[in-house]
Amino acid sequence: MIAQEAEQAAARVMARCDELAAISSSPGQLTRVYLSPEHLRANQLVGSWMRELGMEVWQDGVGNICGRYEGMQPSAPVLLLGSHLDTVRNAGRYDGMLGVLTALEVVAFLHSRNRRLPQAIEVIGFADEEGTRFGITLLGSKGVTGQWEPDWLACTDAGGVSVAEAMRDAGLDPAAVGSAERAQDSIGAYLELHIEQGPCLEAADLALGVVTAINAARRLNCTFIGHAGHAGTVPMGLRQDALAAAAEWMVAVERLTVECDPHVVATVGQIESLPGAVNVIPGQVRLSLDVRGPQDEQLDTLLTELLAQAQSIGARRGIRFDSEEFYRIAATACDQALQQRWIDAVMQVQGSCLKLPSGAGHDGLAIAARWPVGMLFVRCAGGISHHPDEAVTLGDVALAIQAYCQVVAIAD
Amino acid sequence: MIAQEAEQAAARVMARCDELAAISSSPGQLTRVYLSPEHLRANQLVGSWMRELGMEVWQDGVGNICGRYEGMQPSAPVLLLGSHLDTVRNAGRYDGMLGVLTALEVVAFLHSRNRRLPQAIEVIGFADEEGTRFGITLLGSKGVTGQWEPDWLACTDAGGVSVAEAMRDAGLDPAAVGSAERAQDSIGAYLELHIEQGPCLEAADLALGVVTAINAARRLNCTFIGHAGHAGTVPMGLRQDALAAAAEWMVAVERLTVECDPHVVATVGQIESLPGAVNVIPGQVRLSLDVRGPQDEQLDTLLTELLAQAQSIGARRGIRFDSEEFYRIAATACDQALQQRWIDAVMQVQGSCLKLPSGAGHDGLAIAARWPVGMLFVRCAGGISHHPDEAVTLGDVALAIQAYCQVVAIAD
Repeated sequence: MIAQEAEQAAARVMARCDELAAISSSPGQLTRVYLSPEHLRANQLVGSWMRELGMEVWQDGVGNICGRYEGMQPSAPVLLLGSHLDTVRNAGRYDGMLGVLTALEVVAFLHSRNRRLPQAIEVIGFADEEGTRFGITLLGSKGVTGQWEPDWLACTDAGGVSVAEAMRDAGLDPAAVGSAERAQDSIGAYLELHIEQGPCLEAADLALGVVTAINAARRLNCTFIGHAGHAGTVPMGLRQDALAAAAEWMVAVERLTVECDPHVVATVGQIESLPGAVNVIPGQVRLSLDVRGPQDEQLDTLLTELLAQAQSIGARRGIRFDSEEFYRIAATACDQALQQRWIDAVMQVQGSCLKLPSGAGHDGLAIAARWPVGMLFVRCAGGISHHPDEAVTLGDVALAIQAYCQVVAIAD
Repeated sequence: MIAQEAEQAAARVMARCDELAAISSSPGQLTRVYLSPEHLRANQLVGSWMRELGMEVWQDGVGNICGRYEGMQPSAPVLLLGSHLDTVRNAGRYDGMLGVLTALEVVAFLHSRNRRLPQAIEVIGFADEEGTRFGITLLGSKGVTGQWEPDWLACTDAGGVSVAEAMRDAGLDPAAVGSAERAQDSIGAYLELHIEQGPCLEAADLALGVVTAINAARRLNCTFIGHAGHAGTVPMGLRQDALAAAAEWMVAVERLTVECDPHVVATVGQIESLPGAVNVIPGQVRLSLDVRGPQDEQLDTLLTELLAQAQSIGARRGIRFDSEEFYRIAATACDQALQQRWIDAVMQVQGSCLKLPSGAGHDGLAIAARWPVGMLFVRCAGGISHHPDEAVTLGDVALAIQAYCQVVAIAD
């Protein structure tokens, strides 16, 4: 694919991202949630673009929009490309959509030459990845893998509307959710392009990077329990200040995480000091800990060390430390062979390649339970996502489309 | 004064603390605020105890209960003894009251022997020290010093009742507040006995300590402003985590304060992390800083160093630090000669003496603007105050009464 053609494709992608961004339930912002009228309109629009490429188009049992560009061997496992069309509230216009629209450009590249691959290519616009409406993420991709839980139909949104009611309102049959599930041998591999949602590519001055894994994550609620006291009358040496202990621990969390591995991160995002008065020594501090990394074992080793540090800091200060893990997700490695195909393609168009784990979740998380997954990241300005300021450049998108065509093994 | 007599006096003080504690506006708790019906009843009761000692009794223009035990030279400047009779909500029964009731035992000691000092002794039960009702502290002692601000009469309590209305309801004339002011030459010195409200005497295994100063204090609101980000996608090295910066600073605050002086304290009591989500790197942290110490210059030097540390930590991390001082009170030194008299008396009854600053404010803070102040601290269990668990022992109170009689220079 020549650079000029890639730039034209990228310009089309950018224009379509704008067009999709206008389909929103919140005026002046972009909000498009699962099974909303806006979701259905986005599906229709993307379906119309698919039809222009000679694709067979349908909406599946959970509301994913699907298009099939037939291959020479119709029974061969398909190559599935895609991402999601739903958004968070007041979202950016590239998270998800960019992956669907660049996939269509891969098909457009074939279609313009009237070429067919041995296997069919299917492009999917997942109906829900963010979980914005019902608090359950990956409803689209888990429909395809057959991982819907029976009780999800009864879950309700903020307005009290259940998933089942929302499906009926959208013309879907809640009893037919299972029809979205794809047979194991019908799909060969899944590829996804996504904005990075982080600053690593920008820091490395590169447009594209290949994802090694979707990071494992653990989340804990932690508590330091000391002894409240009068801020004026208790000397420093006689205090059991829960916040002083928490501060010492937060410094250790940062240091030990930095020492662990550049791809591992730890964050204390929430903190509360009790009783929380300017003139009272904190008797109790509650705080959250979020740790993520590409390897489960490495992450658990770090976490063990962090908790041991908290115990040791607490013991020295006469302060009790407790923690409770409330969220755990295993690392999802991207398929080695698909990683290599992405790396080769990125090397060819970019001259070098950054390999990095994904700190955020993606549809590939669900898909990887059944099929090999390969992911490409595109640089986004300032690492910003889930925000109207989310931005990519035309040049980066053009490069991404070149790599995408390359990786589907159809480069001219 | 022999030990047995001191123990009888202490037993009377303990019983009277219980009796006063029953005069409360909150059932099952002790709450007695300025100009409440309970305040007036407490004044009446204390006044009756004063009369039993042959004292002349009156309630002054701001509601302080006053008793005068005449001296041999009626025109000599009086020795003023006392503390306050108001409480915080759900208070302990010794903070304030112990100082009034032990002062009465000093008079009782004289009265039982039919002795007169050259100067008169006046005992005062201040009407308001805590500021519980109107949010203004030291209304009683500032009435005596003539430091009432003109706009205080219009201040209202939680129920919308103004100080002026409350005064009228209590039978006081708001126009006659000035009548409470005492002429400079009418008072020679002020002595106050108070519970420590801290753990230093308990840690030193001593019943009594002499107060060197009422500590200076500064309070600041501080802010670290960094950059919020995705807790999964931003590597540690690319973060501007406001909470990580605040944690590093809190560790420095503790270390530098410990290094400064054993009588200086610093406390971060309030902390808020924004946006405050488990999976978002904190972009902003707001926290309070409270520093106190016996010398203004030393405290200001420490504070300057703490703020410089915050700037330096912020600069290294790409984080802005701002602070605003919203409260400042100068150190109030206790009178050197009165300190020495207390020290001599404590040495005599206790064999050793701890000198310590007061981290909490007291009526002496106001009185010191006009007259020499000397204060004695009595050990309280666990350093606890402003809480129903506030406790002193009979033995400690007996020792305190012995020292109090001693310091008034009337020991047998």
